[in-house]
Amino acid sequence: MWTYETTVKWSGGKKGRALCAGKPDIEISTPPEFGGPEGCWTPEDLLAASVAGCLMTSALFFIERDSIALSSCECRARAVMQKTPQGLAITGISVDVNISLQDPGQEPALRRALERAEASCPVSKSLNCPVELALQLGR
Amino acid sequence: MWTYETTVKWSGGKKGRALCAGKPDIEISTPPEFGGPEGCWTPEDLLAASVAGCLMTSALFFIERDSIALSSCECRARAVMQKTPQGLAITGISVDVNISLQDPGQEPALRRALERAEASCPVSKSLNCPVELALQLGR
Repeated sequence: MWTYETTVKWSGGKKGRALCAGKPDIEISTPPEFGGPEGCWTPEDLLAASVAGCLMTSALFFIERDSIALSSCECRARAVMQKTPQGLAITGISVDVNISLQDPGQEPALRRALERAEASCPVSKSLNCPVELALQLGR
Repeated sequence: MWTYETTVKWSGGKKGRALCAGKPDIEISTPPEFGGPEGCWTPEDLLAASVAGCLMTSALFFIERDSIALSSCECRARAVMQKTPQGLAITGISVDVNISLQDPGQEPALRRALERAEASCPVSKSLNCPVELALQLGR
């Protein structure tokens, strides 16, 4: 069992600071469209970062294990929030993974590694909305 | 409908940078217990920050609407990750909310505001694991 602990400390208005031992603070706020200021990470941004980051680090595990050599890797997560009969909810997250391989012949191995990452990512597994992943291979 | 987009860019090894337009970058990594370096935010930390931040900003909405005057407010979220038959998964998040009121007589109003925040928080609503909230009143 592993635990991950973060504290958010209110700093007035619609802002706070996210603190995690030994790591730089993150200034957070209510999204601007709900009255918060511009320029701060919002809880919804952090959720998207968590999903993109977890898919990437899960993928890196299988990529390393299977000796796949990357030139670059980028994961863009887009979380959609909508009004539902139960109120505001995150209704889906789409993730575009953009990867360049050092050896294009490793594409089949990369696709297998990503499938495993998708199935094993603990963060997307903890969500009750669909998480859709699309791979784009760079040149 | 609102969308929240974040990109995580691999920076080598088990590290990356989370980028969100107009906001400071966050250095992220695989957790140290899975081979990542120390000192970076992990996807699991970001999930905890997202839940704590969303509960806090949801609470601040009702607190402002109901003219409740706070002295301080802190939300600590602890995400538990465990091995399950489906692999690693986040199995629960407990959130301790610590609030000091300017007027202790507003406690009943605060409790109602927190109940509403709990029911309306879009991030915790998107999770399939239990999110448990406990309120501690400071003096």
